[in-house]
Amino acid sequence: MSLLVTGTVGIDTVETPHGTANDVLGGSACYFSLAASLLTPVRLVCVVGEDFPEKFRNLFANRPIDLAGMETRAGSKTFRWHGRYVGDMNHAETLRTDLNVVAEAPPKIPEAFRDTGYVFLANTHPAIQRRFIEQLRSPKLIVCDTMNLWINEFRDDLVKTLSAVDGVVLNDGEARLLTGQTDLIRAGLDVIKMGPTFVVIKKGEHGAMLVSPDEVFVLPAFPTANVKDPTGAGDSFAAGMMGHLAAIDRIDAGAMKGAMARGACMASITIESFSLDSILAAKRETLDARLTKYKQMLSFD
Amino acid sequence: MSLLVTGTVGIDTVETPHGTANDVLGGSACYFSLAASLLTPVRLVCVVGEDFPEKFRNLFANRPIDLAGMETRAGSKTFRWHGRYVGDMNHAETLRTDLNVVAEAPPKIPEAFRDTGYVFLANTHPAIQRRFIEQLRSPKLIVCDTMNLWINEFRDDLVKTLSAVDGVVLNDGEARLLTGQTDLIRAGLDVIKMGPTFVVIKKGEHGAMLVSPDEVFVLPAFPTANVKDPTGAGDSFAAGMMGHLAAIDRIDAGAMKGAMARGACMASITIESFSLDSILAAKRETLDARLTKYKQMLSFD
Repeated sequence: MSLLVTGTVGIDTVETPHGTANDVLGGSACYFSLAASLLTPVRLVCVVGEDFPEKFRNLFANRPIDLAGMETRAGSKTFRWHGRYVGDMNHAETLRTDLNVVAEAPPKIPEAFRDTGYVFLANTHPAIQRRFIEQLRSPKLIVCDTMNLWINEFRDDLVKTLSAVDGVVLNDGEARLLTGQTDLIRAGLDVIKMGPTFVVIKKGEHGAMLVSPDEVFVLPAFPTANVKDPTGAGDSFAAGMMGHLAAIDRIDAGAMKGAMARGACMASITIESFSLDSILAAKRETLDARLTKYKQMLSFD
Repeated sequence: MSLLVTGTVGIDTVETPHGTANDVLGGSACYFSLAASLLTPVRLVCVVGEDFPEKFRNLFANRPIDLAGMETRAGSKTFRWHGRYVGDMNHAETLRTDLNVVAEAPPKIPEAFRDTGYVFLANTHPAIQRRFIEQLRSPKLIVCDTMNLWINEFRDDLVKTLSAVDGVVLNDGEARLLTGQTDLIRAGLDVIKMGPTFVVIKKGEHGAMLVSPDEVFVLPAFPTANVKDPTGAGDSFAAGMMGHLAAIDRIDAGAMKGAMARGACMASITIESFSLDSILAAKRETLDARLTKYKQMLSFD
């Protein structure tokens, strides 16, 4: 089945101990759509400025990504982010954010996209996430992301959005901040009380945990010593997860586990290069080979 | 096969957000021997003072633990530790340590123990660990633990010990401190250059990673929302790991993975109570049931 993503497509400058990438393709919906397209057709909803480079737009070509929901707004400028990773590279320090077109009216979901079954609402203001939800006709699964800013400053709005989605992905720090629980299982269970039926807590280099009322499971990250740039790891994780669920059109517990595993493998590919380079170079077989290795790693007598 | 452990048996006072346990049984070799005895016979080498309570000594009875190497030194007092866990309970704050008998001459390995094949040297001064090694006749596998103090203050001694063992278990912070590498895989590979053929990096609630020249794998912790007291988690992990290797008398890559899995399950049992309570209450079936659940958690399509 098709998979719809709403979120940011932008231009990043990223500094890591391995070097600096200037003015490269970035943004949550960009990582998500290019990664998920290895698994299933993707419908991209985003807005960019008239300065969005043609060379970046061309990177979406020849992939099963429908750009009918990519609005190029005249007179506006594309979202830009400048970040830096230091030390263990688990957290980015934001040096500068130019919201630009992202601070204006959000894009609309095209009529032809409104019947999409699987939907990922990448991080943005929770009220905007709800406006996207209102445009959907018969979603089978809506999962949203969020961030500290909304937890701290727009908590009521976020809680409203959480009551309107089926699942939420957030990182360990955000789960603790949202619930006040230090234990991640307890944090997950508290988030579920706000509405979603499951919570995926991303733990960076330590993998991810799924918490639902019936089940808790945790999978490690796919180990790689070749971490160049962690940007987009979380969105790539979500892409592997949602891409698999949409591809097999199932959302049972078994499907969720296979989905999380693909998320872990996808994220490990993303972080092995700056920007989208390794995701753009990857084929379906790249992901499948990593998944086979991951399965072997996790099986024992 | 038999498994020998050298280390501390002492009396702990532990404060956690769940309460305080005063003057309870503790110490690395205590956690290790009681946990490992669920899997294989254990030979315990330690020294306690004449104040060591009879009720604690009785806890070792009726288990396959040979106490011939447990010296009770007249005129000496037992090792005591007072620690506190706050917040996410990943790290203990030491409030007080009374080395007592542990600051005196180390115990000797009894003649009858010197042919043991599988040996775990729990954390102590690396020079003392080497003196234990010198007393062994034909070890098949020697694994040691260590801590920040020896890395910072007795680095040369520690490096000598590392060149005399087959494997080392240490936590993520210690691996980074020892090598100066932030990436744990690179840290593990740097430790291997110091001598051991494998390194197990314990990551607390995030599981553990094995690094060898041929292989890297990582397993998550067994998830539990019922963490009462993390004391002894690392020693219990080592006990599950070494206990399995000794029980099946194999040290190949497949055996190592099964061993790490048992370590993860054993550690999760330990932390669900204060002191040794849940390990003392556990049977072999308790561990096996947890292992079955862990295996299910880590398998997916």
